[in-house]
Amino acid sequence: MNVAIIGGTGYGAVELIRFLYNHPNVTLTTIISHSNSGTSFSEVYPHLSDLVNVEMESFDEDQLAKEVDLVFFATPSNVSKHQIPKLIDKGIKCIDLSGDFRLEDHELYEQYYGEEMAEAKYIDQAVYGLSEINNESIKGASLIANPGCYPTATTLGLIPVLANDMVERKNIIIDAKTGVSGAGRSLSLNTHFSEMNENFKAYKIGNHKHIPEIEQVLSKAAEEEIQITFTPHIVPMTRGIMSTMYVDLKEKQSTNQLIALYEDFYKYHPFVRIRKEGVFPQTKEVYGSNYCDIGLYADQRTGKLIIVSVIDNLVKGASGQAIQNMNIMNGWEETTGLTQLPIYP
Amino acid sequence: MNVAIIGGTGYGAVELIRFLYNHPNVTLTTIISHSNSGTSFSEVYPHLSDLVNVEMESFDEDQLAKEVDLVFFATPSNVSKHQIPKLIDKGIKCIDLSGDFRLEDHELYEQYYGEEMAEAKYIDQAVYGLSEINNESIKGASLIANPGCYPTATTLGLIPVLANDMVERKNIIIDAKTGVSGAGRSLSLNTHFSEMNENFKAYKIGNHKHIPEIEQVLSKAAEEEIQITFTPHIVPMTRGIMSTMYVDLKEKQSTNQLIALYEDFYKYHPFVRIRKEGVFPQTKEVYGSNYCDIGLYADQRTGKLIIVSVIDNLVKGASGQAIQNMNIMNGWEETTGLTQLPIYP
Amino acid sequence: MNVAIIGGTGYGAVELIRFLYNHPNVTLTTIISHSNSGTSFSEVYPHLSDLVNVEMESFDEDQLAKEVDLVFFATPSNVSKHQIPKLIDKGIKCIDLSGDFRLEDHELYEQYYGEEMAEAKYIDQAVYGLSEINNESIKGASLIANPGCYPTATTLGLIPVLANDMVERKNIIIDAKTGVSGAGRSLSLNTHFSEMNENFKAYKIGNHKHIPEIEQVLSKAAEEEIQITFTPHIVPMTRGIMSTMYVDLKEKQSTNQLIALYEDFYKYHPFVRIRKEGVFPQTKEVYGSNYCDIGLYADQRTGKLIIVSVIDNLVKGASGQAIQNMNIMNGWEETTGLTQLPIYP
Amino acid sequence: MNVAIIGGTGYGAVELIRFLYNHPNVTLTTIISHSNSGTSFSEVYPHLSDLVNVEMESFDEDQLAKEVDLVFFATPSNVSKHQIPKLIDKGIKCIDLSGDFRLEDHELYEQYYGEEMAEAKYIDQAVYGLSEINNESIKGASLIANPGCYPTATTLGLIPVLANDMVERKNIIIDAKTGVSGAGRSLSLNTHFSEMNENFKAYKIGNHKHIPEIEQVLSKAAEEEIQITFTPHIVPMTRGIMSTMYVDLKEKQSTNQLIALYEDFYKYHPFVRIRKEGVFPQTKEVYGSNYCDIGLYADQRTGKLIIVSVIDNLVKGASGQAIQNMNIMNGWEETTGLTQLPIYP
Repeated sequence: MNVAIIGGTGYGAVELIRFLYNHPNVTLTTIISHSNSGTSFSEVYPHLSDLVNVEMESFDEDQLAKEVDLVFFATPSNVSKHQIPKLIDKGIKCIDLSGDFRLEDHELYEQYYGEEMAEAKYIDQAVYGLSEINNESIKGASLIANPGCYPTATTLGLIPVLANDMVERKNIIIDAKTGVSGAGRSLSLNTHFSEMNENFKAYKIGNHKHIPEIEQVLSKAAEEEIQITFTPHIVPMTRGIMSTMYVDLKEKQSTNQLIALYEDFYKYHPFVRIRKEGVFPQTKEVYGSNYCDIGLYADQRTGKLIIVSVIDNLVKGASGQAIQNMNIMNGWEETTGLTQLPIYP
Repeated sequence: MNVAIIGGTGYGAVELIRFLYNHPNVTLTTIISHSNSGTSFSEVYPHLSDLVNVEMESFDEDQLAKEVDLVFFATPSNVSKHQIPKLIDKGIKCIDLSGDFRLEDHELYEQYYGEEMAEAKYIDQAVYGLSEINNESIKGASLIANPGCYPTATTLGLIPVLANDMVERKNIIIDAKTGVSGAGRSLSLNTHFSEMNENFKAYKIGNHKHIPEIEQVLSKAAEEEIQITFTPHIVPMTRGIMSTMYVDLKEKQSTNQLIALYEDFYKYHPFVRIRKEGVFPQTKEVYGSNYCDIGLYADQRTGKLIIVSVIDNLVKGASGQAIQNMNIMNGWEETTGLTQLPIYP
Repeated sequence: MNVAIIGGTGYGAVELIRFLYNHPNVTLTTIISHSNSGTSFSEVYPHLSDLVNVEMESFDEDQLAKEVDLVFFATPSNVSKHQIPKLIDKGIKCIDLSGDFRLEDHELYEQYYGEEMAEAKYIDQAVYGLSEINNESIKGASLIANPGCYPTATTLGLIPVLANDMVERKNIIIDAKTGVSGAGRSLSLNTHFSEMNENFKAYKIGNHKHIPEIEQVLSKAAEEEIQITFTPHIVPMTRGIMSTMYVDLKEKQSTNQLIALYEDFYKYHPFVRIRKEGVFPQTKEVYGSNYCDIGLYADQRTGKLIIVSVIDNLVKGASGQAIQNMNIMNGWEETTGLTQLPIYP
Repeated sequence: MNVAIIGGTGYGAVELIRFLYNHPNVTLTTIISHSNSGTSFSEVYPHLSDLVNVEMESFDEDQLAKEVDLVFFATPSNVSKHQIPKLIDKGIKCIDLSGDFRLEDHELYEQYYGEEMAEAKYIDQAVYGLSEINNESIKGASLIANPGCYPTATTLGLIPVLANDMVERKNIIIDAKTGVSGAGRSLSLNTHFSEMNENFKAYKIGNHKHIPEIEQVLSKAAEEEIQITFTPHIVPMTRGIMSTMYVDLKEKQSTNQLIALYEDFYKYHPFVRIRKEGVFPQTKEVYGSNYCDIGLYADQRTGKLIIVSVIDNLVKGASGQAIQNMNIMNGWEETTGLTQLPIYP
């Protein structure tokens, strides 16, 4: 199967390439980058010297339709909504790593993305690609809205107790921390080494665009409207996300009862791993891999359940999950091309 | 005035020395280090070559009584409780950076510190040295229990709304993050560079020894028993603490109303700075300095108040506050010797 | 083919496991760790939870002889010299990542390793596993002395010009820099996060044990005795080595002439990549991979050639090259199991 | 004395402010920033909230002449050459942290700075502000060309042996490493956190603009033309420079003889510290301070002297040395306002 990547020189693209390079069923034939058309990929990313010398091209839907069966979009917000419809109309499957097709509510999209949403008929086709939860609908999809990084770590951590109606609907607090690569390759003072090194900060409190996405996913899982409190922070490291989450248990549960519940919930899902009692996952333990690792602590004093969920933001939080979704769409083994172990230390 | 430091080769001591070196009213005459007796300080810390060549000594209360008026303890847990009584009995003032004299409840001490507490008559003399809150009692004290790092950042952030009875007593959640130096200079796999670099982790969930300390301080401020949910994390940086705190407001308040309240609460306290609406303090903004910087966000959707409080864990969270307390005890300007600006970037 | 790893809980072992896990021709059946016998591997390294649950065992040559065909030693100095002879005598092939079998000169070994060398008959069997240079003798070897990290980066950078007799034998200066993982998992103040973070230092100037190893390799390549000046430094990062090398060219050469020479020298060796004129490799460009990347600059003002050579110290500098050598010994494609791309960013 | 800073929002400026804030003889009245005119300084640098609320202004030489006696330029290249003449003509003393007035050779300036040099009569007035070496001429100067960061670390390390005619004039190799803040606050992919974190790289090999500056200073000290080989590298840390230098000793010397020579050479210079035999300075040991620390190793095998010299690039390599020069110009104690200890860890 031939595939293309649009948005060729961001971190999403470079991670897609890492996994596609060793994927047995797929050939990457085309990399589209508006701003680098005509340049060899390895000139922009010398770590791929002698390995990925594909010359980047401009977007051309007719050309793509001739060459490839599936396209990954690793573009900034408000780009894929213009291009995906053209490809879908030509029968090309699309996996979109941006947020353009994730939200169902037009008003929320405009509020958080600052522009109009894609046309409704394309939004309706989009399947939200949270692989472990939406496995069935992903199988038949031709357009995948690949989840955001925070939403992946967060919802995988919360859904087991929400879907089992074990927690109160209010007081759901998500204190999230990300490595700097989450901000992409665009330059800003926020990602300037001397300002971010040896620093830790909160940002976009109360207005991060992942808030409506998380609430949409959780509300479906809980079959009830959920409102969250979500505070993102930046950690002086390149990769990794941790969501530390606080919920009120409806009834007392021991930590081990909850661990058993989570293990059961994810028993057919190799990329979610539950830690034993007293052990909590660290971001480095999933570095470079597609795992989501979860640790639990039921505080008997306060009745709170504390959930710690970690992913590599560029892998399970973006490109790795996109490959996983491609595998599911095609009926391949879910782990195909994703068997690389976390790199440690 | 002559002073001594006990516990000479930990990070608490080396930071005390940094501030004492330029303090106009004080001479550091003696550094006690059991394990390094006879060694020059600058051999252990070459950054002080040619500057601090004091030869370290063993603890001897009679010798100390002859030489100094005040002693700083920068020792591990369960050391100062044996030595401070001997010095207090000889009329030497003591500032203890360890936790030995912070808790009032003997059972909690045993539970969290694993040994018996100091004798009650010394515990009773100890004044909890949260400078901004206990200013008056610090003035007359001869024994200061200098606050822990997390408790300092946390309680300075919470007390204004608790003391003003503006928040619910339950659902107080403290998601705290510290730089690695909080673990001191003792070697462990947790502080091994290759394991901690490019990593972020939670630890001691539900059983950190700062939990009873924070609850004791907040309960006094609120005049009611307070239970908290407290999750500490380690950030791959050397210095800095951030406490991100979530409380339920009893009544709706705008962010700006709350900022005004905090500014008023701390108006006579130069080391607490309140950020303007929409701005949140970063740990690097207090690096090397004695400031505690606070940002606020009142979430109108959920009724939660989010408080972000940062300090340098080794300064306001330890040695800087100890100097500040020495100043207060002696009736000197609170900022004496502490006017160094944060070092940035 | 079944293989075992001795020295199971160091970074050498954990990287061997990463590559063996996906190697198509090999099964890892046994992990030996004296100090962790009876423990599951993933308890020590939770990033391999659910993946590598092998229970570690104590060393037993008879047991090993029954189970495996080849053994990797990832042990500290002066361990494998006692154990490898026992296995060799039983016909088991050995790849030794430690320095025990690298030096040919007994006196130098004693000077730099502080103990007696292994018995001469085993030293004589050992083939120095610098894969690109000693390819032919590795093929028939039963005992491989896998090169050190600094020697790999350094000698691959210098041999092309030395073997072609293009540089003066004196004035060879090697200014080397390593990430902290080069010091392994043993705890020390040198690898304590708070001391090493935001720090850069030189160490072991003039007495590093890689000096005789590098001189031995270079002297053979130059067919003349070579003395080097070698200064190692530690960089506040986990992985990566850069050797910046300075040599006197016998005759003027342009940078491009030298690049052509290096490209030709390594044309059959996929793991050595030569950068174009004006481009120099960065350590991050080989992160997690088996590449050695080299950049060149011929300074026309001073007649010096500057060579920049980078590797991942844990991969091409240790475990990756060990896998490469296993492949060569067995007549497999050299890149088998090593096709993972560098992970970037 | 009133002073101004031009180039208000770079790292040079912010460090000048840190030292001026506590300087007993000086008041900072004016901060000039073309791009931030009208903005409060602490809005751009929130770590100075409540402390430095000066409103920034545009450059106006008449206004400056009324307000201040001395001006610091912390501007990019090719700015101060236009503005300093106007101030000098009005009798205002200037200390220039940029490279505009450092070189004496017009051709070299054009080659490395890409533009024409300042007018000769101003160049002739400029005194190169390497405080320890040019102390006497700094005293009477009205225009100081403050040295570059690499040249400061490098020349202070080399001058003692060059001035004493103890080393060969050729084969002087300088392998230099800097923290990222050396690149300033301007955004570029080179200083993008995700690209620079966990990375180490060489850059501008053979064409860095500090080459002619270093050669000019060394040639004067040696009273003979000196050519160097200079390779700069970037370390993933914010602050600190290390120059590791290799020279050929004319005659054999023990390390201790050379240490004695260096100690004698710098005996009246409190900011240069020489380490004992076997000890080498680390960059963190001068963090935030004005020290230049030097370690030596005379390699008896090869006849090379290895010199390790470290500074904080933003302090002794820029703003701290500028303050030191201001002190010398005014006949104040050299250390005034610079007594802050290195901050460690």
